[in-house]
Amino acid sequence: MSEEATSENSGRRRARGGGGAARRAERTAVKIEAAKYIERNIPNFEILNEEALQIIEANAEAILEEIGVNFLDNPAALERWREAGADIDGERVRIPKGLCRELIKTAPGEYIQHARNPDRNVRVGGNTMVLAPVYGPPFVRDMDGGRRYATIADFQNFVKLAYMSKWLHHSGGTVCEPTDIAVNKRHLDMLYAHMTLSDKPYMGSVTAPERAQDSVAMSEILFGGSVANKTVMTSLININSPMTFDDIMMGAMEVYAKNNQACIVSPFIVGGAMAPVSVAGTLTQALAEGLAGVAYNQLCNPGAPVIMGAFVTSIDMNSGAPTFGTPEASKILYGMGQLVRRLGLPYRSGGGLCASKLPDAQAAYETANTLNAALLGGVNFCLHAAGWLEGGLVSSYEKFVMDADQLGILHSIAEGVDMSENGQALGAIHEVGPGGHYLGCEHTQANFKDAFWRTEVLDYKPYETWAEDGEKDTMTLANARVKKLLGDYQQPAIDPAIDEALLAYIAKRKESEPDAFG
Amino acid sequence: MSEEATSENSGRRRARGGGGAARRAERTAVKIEAAKYIERNIPNFEILNEEALQIIEANAEAILEEIGVNFLDNPAALERWREAGADIDGERVRIPKGLCRELIKTAPGEYIQHARNPDRNVRVGGNTMVLAPVYGPPFVRDMDGGRRYATIADFQNFVKLAYMSKWLHHSGGTVCEPTDIAVNKRHLDMLYAHMTLSDKPYMGSVTAPERAQDSVAMSEILFGGSVANKTVMTSLININSPMTFDDIMMGAMEVYAKNNQACIVSPFIVGGAMAPVSVAGTLTQALAEGLAGVAYNQLCNPGAPVIMGAFVTSIDMNSGAPTFGTPEASKILYGMGQLVRRLGLPYRSGGGLCASKLPDAQAAYETANTLNAALLGGVNFCLHAAGWLEGGLVSSYEKFVMDADQLGILHSIAEGVDMSENGQALGAIHEVGPGGHYLGCEHTQANFKDAFWRTEVLDYKPYETWAEDGEKDTMTLANARVKKLLGDYQQPAIDPAIDEALLAYIAKRKESEPDAFG
Repeated sequence: MSEEATSENSGRRRARGGGGAARRAERTAVKIEAAKYIERNIPNFEILNEEALQIIEANAEAILEEIGVNFLDNPAALERWREAGADIDGERVRIPKGLCRELIKTAPGEYIQHARNPDRNVRVGGNTMVLAPVYGPPFVRDMDGGRRYATIADFQNFVKLAYMSKWLHHSGGTVCEPTDIAVNKRHLDMLYAHMTLSDKPYMGSVTAPERAQDSVAMSEILFGGSVANKTVMTSLININSPMTFDDIMMGAMEVYAKNNQACIVSPFIVGGAMAPVSVAGTLTQALAEGLAGVAYNQLCNPGAPVIMGAFVTSIDMNSGAPTFGTPEASKILYGMGQLVRRLGLPYRSGGGLCASKLPDAQAAYETANTLNAALLGGVNFCLHAAGWLEGGLVSSYEKFVMDADQLGILHSIAEGVDMSENGQALGAIHEVGPGGHYLGCEHTQANFKDAFWRTEVLDYKPYETWAEDGEKDTMTLANARVKKLLGDYQQPAIDPAIDEALLAYIAKRKESEPDAFG
Repeated sequence: MSEEATSENSGRRRARGGGGAARRAERTAVKIEAAKYIERNIPNFEILNEEALQIIEANAEAILEEIGVNFLDNPAALERWREAGADIDGERVRIPKGLCRELIKTAPGEYIQHARNPDRNVRVGGNTMVLAPVYGPPFVRDMDGGRRYATIADFQNFVKLAYMSKWLHHSGGTVCEPTDIAVNKRHLDMLYAHMTLSDKPYMGSVTAPERAQDSVAMSEILFGGSVANKTVMTSLININSPMTFDDIMMGAMEVYAKNNQACIVSPFIVGGAMAPVSVAGTLTQALAEGLAGVAYNQLCNPGAPVIMGAFVTSIDMNSGAPTFGTPEASKILYGMGQLVRRLGLPYRSGGGLCASKLPDAQAAYETANTLNAALLGGVNFCLHAAGWLEGGLVSSYEKFVMDADQLGILHSIAEGVDMSENGQALGAIHEVGPGGHYLGCEHTQANFKDAFWRTEVLDYKPYETWAEDGEKDTMTLANARVKKLLGDYQQPAIDPAIDEALLAYIAKRKESEPDAFG
């Protein structure tokens, strides 16, 4: 059954507060399976040797000192940097060697992001891996409706799908852009969907400092008070590569850091355009950018939780299009993981990334190449783990459930090999002996239910059965699963008083300014 | 252009001997790009720690001593084992602890398999990875003809596709079963196809000892004399798990070992049926089987080249069907690699394995999961690297070229990270600076042609262009590539005298016995 909803009521849901409606909701709530975040019991794959790491680290420090980074339209940031000991030249910040490393020492090596259901809290950093859905696409696609602009109804559907997906630990952020709502107001509806349709942890808005402030305010309503001592959001702060920090993203980060909320500081790099075409060159620039960004985060609030990230794709030099699942991207993912771990910080990278227009073989090759690298490369926070299509332009319903199914594989590999006496299975080998078979033996009977990862999407039928059943491809099977999950969905209980307070906040904020599009 | 044939005559083909036809063939031969076998410049991923390895090794030795293995219908093998110091009880061979390890010390850590074109020789073992196509399916599938029994025409097509595929280093063996030819004669036509339609190394027949002898005899014709001092075949010897060595496979192995031809000694395990349901238990059994098989190979001819392999799948406990691309299979692949490397032997595993009936997303997820594990797990000889579909029942034309394209990714990752001054690209980072872009900079211009792996199949077009072009999925794109490769194919030159001698040998052998089917 795994992540399917069932009518079974054995998994009692925690309800906040005590209204009658909440109790009724609790009684009828379905059991939703949710896996704990991954805790790796396996080593990381390290592609760079010590000498290479030291060269990249030295080069990154040289870049920060000699070239520096730009903090645009942000005099307060320049002042913070000046006080910290950087050289300020207009909006250019040149950072003496070693200063960033010194500043980031206050950043925690790992942190807990709290969810409204404490069973869904995630630990980010160290040996963990937290999986979150696709972020950012303006379009959605499914088999029934094709490719179209995303709406708030789509957004709600993807929040529901993430909630129903056992292997996703996080509800994410902009699972798609609800383009039917004003740009200056849609963050409110997005947050409300995450807060009420799911009980998993979520991300805050970063598209303007005041929207970050709204995210904090709504979280305080949801969690019943100040969140200054309780990290309840992890939000995505992109660096504009090469080496530029704009005031909008930095303004949002300042709000989150001051409120002790986590940020992912992450360059978004299309290699060959925003960074050198070489792997080592890109790693060097990404490290310099990450150092400056995380150091600035700590300047805003020493000790605030912060993730260093790298989102790097290659470029198709024929068309200029970004490419995914490529060897260059994997090498950068592995190398950046080593560099970030040496800084003692949590690491963000990877995802179910692909360039394909359809959830077809191309999409799956590209996605699997990236997800496997993310697991072995030590990624702690993996955004875009399910649903990403067409270079991030599209959130795909079918690919969402296909990817979410594959994420179960990562959990199992991360467990490593069970070397207990039961795992060694010497008794079974003695019992069966040469020429026998294991299907009926005691060890198999005792272990088969949990021995193997099980898919909820893929097909293992005999050929004849599959042919009689209409020769369904993966997309068709996934389409059926989307419908089953959305049909089985039941909202997790929430205190009606909190719900009302959230709606009141949203209404007040929406009334306070006219709609703005674009 | 990569592996596409061109009319360019710049890549002159070596022709053997000197007939006029050979010279004419040479003049009109097309240039076919062929990558060198992979030489890893990256570490292997090691999932087992030292303690786990020692437990598995001790357990495997205990199995060999206490339970033993069966050598069926093979009195000579029993006599060899008795002389070597094993305990013989009927057909059961119990092998004292340490004896197998002692016997395999004569096996080389790596060897060269020669091709008729010396540029296509492959080194198997150490840091190399040799990629060979799918092996064994009785069916083929393509978009035009659907699923059907394979014929010799299909077989020839797959040999041509492997020859035209830049990233395949090996022509393989039974790329599909030519079911339209008598079982006792088809090996002759298969060998002839590999020998004359390709110039890459190939595998010999293992379905009967006399067919192995035919493989040696035809190879002697092709290579112009005895091959006793020149390994020209690597052939697949399956162990019947659990712990059974039948006389047919062992008989073929005896022929190859005595002729100094390489064998892959490999259990074929569906976990839960032919081995315990646990990873550690399966590794233990597979190691015991591999030790016994390789030791027996060395008993037949100390110093003969031999690969230790593991072909392990999980089982779908609902249907009993084998599954592929699963976490259990990856863990076994990684662990077995460590165990084989500790024995100092070349390692065979992996492939583009999948259970899917179609070359769709399921096939690609499963394939990519396995190919990535094979690269990082230290596989030296990777059979089934392209074209495997439906659990090995089907050779897929479209999947063949899709997989072959992905194999380029493995080559690039294996190179590791270029840490040269050019790779570090500090000059470019200085030149471009904060807020700039790299597309036009000198470093990009000098490097972009070789900077990124390039697909020959996948689509990176803008959405609108792709939509106008018919919204083609990967299978459709691959179908076009199959037709292009087969259309562009030109046979590599061969000395007509050799060709005639091969045909004469085949005719004589075919006349010597009546057709047998089944």
